[in-house]
Amino acid sequence: MDNYDSLYKRYLEEFNDFLQSKTDIKKFQGRDSDGFYSVMEAITYSLTNGGKRIRPVLALEFCRLCSGDHTPALDLALAIEMIHTYSLIHDDLPCMDDDDMRRGKPSNHIVYGYANALLAGDGLQALAFETIARSPLGDDKKVAAVTLLSDAAGPCGMVAGQAMDLENENKYIGLDEIKATDTLKTGKLITASALMGCIAGGADREKFLAAETFAKNIGLAFQIVDDVLDVTGDESKLGKPVGSDEISGKSTYVTILGVESAMKLARDLTTEAVGVLNIFGDDAWFLEELASKLLYREN
Amino acid sequence: MDNYDSLYKRYLEEFNDFLQSKTDIKKFQGRDSDGFYSVMEAITYSLTNGGKRIRPVLALEFCRLCSGDHTPALDLALAIEMIHTYSLIHDDLPCMDDDDMRRGKPSNHIVYGYANALLAGDGLQALAFETIARSPLGDDKKVAAVTLLSDAAGPCGMVAGQAMDLENENKYIGLDEIKATDTLKTGKLITASALMGCIAGGADREKFLAAETFAKNIGLAFQIVDDVLDVTGDESKLGKPVGSDEISGKSTYVTILGVESAMKLARDLTTEAVGVLNIFGDDAWFLEELASKLLYREN
Repeated sequence: MDNYDSLYKRYLEEFNDFLQSKTDIKKFQGRDSDGFYSVMEAITYSLTNGGKRIRPVLALEFCRLCSGDHTPALDLALAIEMIHTYSLIHDDLPCMDDDDMRRGKPSNHIVYGYANALLAGDGLQALAFETIARSPLGDDKKVAAVTLLSDAAGPCGMVAGQAMDLENENKYIGLDEIKATDTLKTGKLITASALMGCIAGGADREKFLAAETFAKNIGLAFQIVDDVLDVTGDESKLGKPVGSDEISGKSTYVTILGVESAMKLARDLTTEAVGVLNIFGDDAWFLEELASKLLYREN
Repeated sequence: MDNYDSLYKRYLEEFNDFLQSKTDIKKFQGRDSDGFYSVMEAITYSLTNGGKRIRPVLALEFCRLCSGDHTPALDLALAIEMIHTYSLIHDDLPCMDDDDMRRGKPSNHIVYGYANALLAGDGLQALAFETIARSPLGDDKKVAAVTLLSDAAGPCGMVAGQAMDLENENKYIGLDEIKATDTLKTGKLITASALMGCIAGGADREKFLAAETFAKNIGLAFQIVDDVLDVTGDESKLGKPVGSDEISGKSTYVTILGVESAMKLARDLTTEAVGVLNIFGDDAWFLEELASKLLYREN
């Protein structure tokens, strides 16, 4: 019987092995070129640079909850992580957040240059959709997955959130605007991760709705905790400097609500998230613990 | 009975109307946001900025040749044009070609800024795949189209060609390398356009192969004529300065072969392209004339 840590570890290992195998340049024989190798090197650099892999884990676990097997969701989990990674590469570019470091390593454009990092992100987005299209899933599931992911990543989702983030810079914004921005910038892709698992696992409508509510809530709670940690966190555990939001004059859940009310909001969202998991019965223990760990995390 | 000009005009008008209707912001009701409007404004700016629409026309005409009706290919033609347009937006960015002008108008980043142009390109790529996924085609055709387009646009296609273009800068390269770069950078998407029409039109394997050869050849011929026009062209007809390749010290078909041999190569490629159209019988007159017009164009 798995406990939380062992199951998370198993998902992580299996996902990382799957990622390695699917991005193995040998698999692209006959479609390779000098340009292919240079783009894939930059892509692999960022794709294998760790991270919690929360999105893939959500996809795998919802698939397991719906079908008893997590493996049908592996390709969709990889597609989601590819979109997430491309967005990080582009977000770090000088014209966006201009971040030289990502997860303790030099950002993609610091290593490969501005133009190559742009191309690596562009290539990753295409690769995400190719990964879905070439998966062993049925055509109906592939089409559902492409529809979901393109909506979550495009002008109705992540990209809109990034544009709002740019517009919000250096101006006071209220709670609703922060929520709206986060919901698009990170929430829609997190929600899509859970729903990808439902697609692969053949969920019914009720389970889709439960997965959606769960993911929306923990996605928002995650952002709130991020803002709280930027004030109360321990730099050595966080791996990045605290107080950066205050320095940049950014409006956050904490600047508007204060630490205590912000944490209460995050707790309430998590409680609601865990509540909708009822539909999965006792089997939902992993997601309950995941929600709680994200709420009380230190990094 | 249509002649070449009237059929081209009809395709162009129908495609532009379809593009307008599919990118009408009213169609996105319920999925809109402040960020959506800002991204869509930048997207629409570039998407409606004219151009010959060769890729959509190829898709529509191959669909007509295969099925007697061009309309099933409209969504796929739009997806192709969205990928092409995103690549132009990103290509013009300061970190890439740093072009302030595109088709006689300020480039996307000149109008909307660097970050918003990056996001417009990113959003357009997602929208291309969403357009396929939401089309009225059958799931099998949608999956075939996503597979084809992601391959043509990603690290095995266009993006690889762009990376090779960066590597080729300021260094002498030979004919094979120019061909390899062009085949990836522009050839694969042009070929995908023809094949998209075959997918929508339900072509058999023989017709797919003919379409592939035709498009590969005219794609390469197109690039050769581009290089020739940069030397022999009339600036007033071309709408851009001639001699730019010589100034930038770029290796081109002309610097390697000279104008006459380069044009002979383009003619030979066009002759072979027209030859494989036999399979479509007399019905291929439009593509024959298209190939010839691209060869003898002045802009």
